[in-house]
Amino acid sequence: MLILGLDPGLGTTGWGVIRADGNRLSHVANGQIRTDPSMQLPRRLALLFGALGEVIRTERPDGAAVEEVLGNSNAQSTLKLGQARGVVLLSASTAGLAIGEYHPSIVKKAVVGTGGADKKQIQAMVGHLLPGVKLSGPDAADALAVAITHAHHLASAQARARRSTGIGA
Amino acid sequence: MLILGLDPGLGTTGWGVIRADGNRLSHVANGQIRTDPSMQLPRRLALLFGALGEVIRTERPDGAAVEEVLGNSNAQSTLKLGQARGVVLLSASTAGLAIGEYHPSIVKKAVVGTGGADKKQIQAMVGHLLPGVKLSGPDAADALAVAITHAHHLASAQARARRSTGIGA
Repeated sequence: MLILGLDPGLGTTGWGVIRADGNRLSHVANGQIRTDPSMQLPRRLALLFGALGEVIRTERPDGAAVEEVLGNSNAQSTLKLGQARGVVLLSASTAGLAIGEYHPSIVKKAVVGTGGADKKQIQAMVGHLLPGVKLSGPDAADALAVAITHAHHLASAQARARRSTGIGA
Repeated sequence: MLILGLDPGLGTTGWGVIRADGNRLSHVANGQIRTDPSMQLPRRLALLFGALGEVIRTERPDGAAVEEVLGNSNAQSTLKLGQARGVVLLSASTAGLAIGEYHPSIVKKAVVGTGGADKKQIQAMVGHLLPGVKLSGPDAADALAVAITHAHHLASAQARARRSTGIGA
């Protein structure tokens, strides 16, 4: 199963695709989509939508995952992030992908083992969990981290389902 | 010229189309797009995007206008609004429409004559400026108000251009 992780942002949106075969994970591709701050907002959103559509057509993921966002006290930056996030969710949704959403602390716990991990620890663990990966940047690392979280979540759910049906037990 | 006004919201997005012939305005159509709060966010955004695309294909506007949004101290509601607004701006942008953005106080001043007007005054003036209009609701009225603001703005810009070139002076 191919999982597309997404880390939305108006300036930079990170994306990463991993292959999940039960608990075995491998890296497929990752990248960062940038939009020029000097452009008008609708144009930036259209460029982001177009670029993500291209990623989805090329990589053909089976599912997607994105971090939950809490917003902060700066209303203008929360609004910007919201606008980008709406377009990112739409890209996956119109492509027919089911989308898992994970709280940032769940992602950190899944990847590093503690909910209080910092960006550098996440990048290091993504590199460790996906041997040979070349990261396009910190946002691509975050995108891969949420994809890994989704893979763990799916593997746990499958294991629970097997136990409850007695198949493979 | 046909102008599409938009009032974005995740629960309800208002839209309204007017015909502007210089300073002469007339109503064409208006409506409200609702998405079910019990549905998942990506699905709601996809429904909003699909419904707006249908409005644009049916009404074939020449331009669009939307209110600027300030956000507020509630980060979760600002984030929701941002996600809907991103999808609304994307709908117009991917349809190739130029989009005017207007501060709420500019819209109130253009429609009612004072930057401090309330919702009821806006609805009453939209009804007065577009005789015979049947409003689908308050969000449709707000959408028509921003379309009217855009029409005034374009008419003023054209008048200025005529004066500066001497054509029609």
